[in-house]
Amino acid sequence: MLMDLKVVLVEPLYQGNVGSVARAMKNFGFSDLVLVNPCKPEVEARAMSSHAWDLLQNATVVSSLEGAIEDSSIVIGTTGITGLKFDEHLRIPPFSPREVRERLSGMDGNVAVLFGREDQGFSREELSLCDMIMTIPTSEVYPVMNLSHAVAVVLYELSELTTGDLPLADAFDVRLLHEHIAELLDDIDYPEHKKEKTRLMIKRIFGRACLLEREVQTLRGILRKIQQHIRE
Amino acid sequence: MLMDLKVVLVEPLYQGNVGSVARAMKNFGFSDLVLVNPCKPEVEARAMSSHAWDLLQNATVVSSLEGAIEDSSIVIGTTGITGLKFDEHLRIPPFSPREVRERLSGMDGNVAVLFGREDQGFSREELSLCDMIMTIPTSEVYPVMNLSHAVAVVLYELSELTTGDLPLADAFDVRLLHEHIAELLDDIDYPEHKKEKTRLMIKRIFGRACLLEREVQTLRGILRKIQQHIRE
Repeated sequence: MLMDLKVVLVEPLYQGNVGSVARAMKNFGFSDLVLVNPCKPEVEARAMSSHAWDLLQNATVVSSLEGAIEDSSIVIGTTGITGLKFDEHLRIPPFSPREVRERLSGMDGNVAVLFGREDQGFSREELSLCDMIMTIPTSEVYPVMNLSHAVAVVLYELSELTTGDLPLADAFDVRLLHEHIAELLDDIDYPEHKKEKTRLMIKRIFGRACLLEREVQTLRGILRKIQQHIRE
Repeated sequence: MLMDLKVVLVEPLYQGNVGSVARAMKNFGFSDLVLVNPCKPEVEARAMSSHAWDLLQNATVVSSLEGAIEDSSIVIGTTGITGLKFDEHLRIPPFSPREVRERLSGMDGNVAVLFGREDQGFSREELSLCDMIMTIPTSEVYPVMNLSHAVAVVLYELSELTTGDLPLADAFDVRLLHEHIAELLDDIDYPEHKKEKTRLMIKRIFGRACLLEREVQTLRGILRKIQQHIRE
C-alpha cells in the first residue's frame, strides 16, 4: 500500500515544471498535489503534465505553507546542498530518499514532502517547519537538479515504501507536544537566545524518529509530570 | 567510485529532452552521452541542459546502436511496460533500477544504459541487443514517464552503485562467447525456428549473471571441448 503522501510545491515559478511534477506524480501513483502561491498553470503546464492534467486540475492551492501541512504527521523538506554552510543546524542531518523510505517503512500516516522554489529553495522559516530534511545525493560539480527530476527521483523511491500498521502520531498531537516542550523551556528559564535552536533540534530528533501515536502520549504524560513538580 | 557508465539515447525526438537528460547526467556525476541518430540539439536543448551544455557538446553522435555499444560489457535496455504482452520473451525478466544496482555491485567494467524513442521505445532488434532489461516500477494508471525523468531516476540509483575489483568480461570476449554458442547450435542441428529465441534466452541469462572475464574464458573452453567431441 502506498503511504498517504502529498507533494507540496512552495511558490513554484515555472508552470512547465508544475506540469512535469504532476506527470511524475501520476507515474508513481501519487495524486495529492498542493501548490503554495504558485504561478498560474496554463498552456505550458498542461502540455508538460501530458496525461496528468486531471491531477493538476485537482491540485489544492493555498496561500501559506502552514496551511498546506497542518494535517501532516511528518513534514519532509527536500533541499539541494546549496547554502548548506549558512544554516547547517537547519539542514542537518539530511537523509537520502532511500533513508527516508527505510525510516518510514512499516508506519502509516500522513506525510508531506516539500519542494522549494526553483531559484531560492526554502526560507529559514519554512525549513524550521520540517521534521526531516531530505537531500538527493548528487555530484558536487553540478548539484542543482531540475525541480521535476527531483520529484521523480523522490517518488520513485517512496513509491517502494512498504507501509505497515504502526500509526504515526497525529499532526495535531505532535504540535501539542512541541508547544508543551516550549512551555517547559519557559518554565525552566531556558536562555531566551537558545530557545529557537533547541526547539528546532528537538523537532528534528522527533522528526527523524517518526513518532508513533502512543509515544507522543507517553512523552506528553512525562512533560505534564515534570511541570507539576516544577510548579509545585 | 562510479561505474564506467554511458547513457545511450536511441533516436530521441525532442531536443528539450536531450538537454534535460544532459543536466540529469551531470547532476549525478555521469558524463558519457551517446546519441544514436538524434534530433539536432539546438536552442531548446541548450536551455534545458542548463549548466550541462558542455556535456551535450561532448556527446558522441553515431548512426547505429551497434556502434554505440560495441565496447560495452553489459548493455541494459530501459523500457516502459508498454507492449509487454507482445514480446514478453524479449523483456522478461525486467529488473528495477535497484535490482540492477545490486547485481552490478562489486563489479567493474563498461556499462551502457539505453533509453528508447519517446514515442516508440525500442524495436525488437534493438531489444535483442540488450543483456538486461530495466523497468522503473510505475503506476499502472499512467506508466509512461518523461524520458529525462526516467534517466534521472535510473542515474540516481546507479550513482549509488559501489564498484569493486571483479572485472566484467570484455565486450569483445562476450561477443565471441555468443558467436561460439551460435556455432554450437548449428553443430547440434538445433531447430532453425528456435535458434533466435534460444540465443536471446542465453543472452539474457548471461546478461543478468553479469559474466566476469575468467568465467567467459572457462565457458568458451567448455564450448571448445564440446565441439571437439562433436566434430570427431
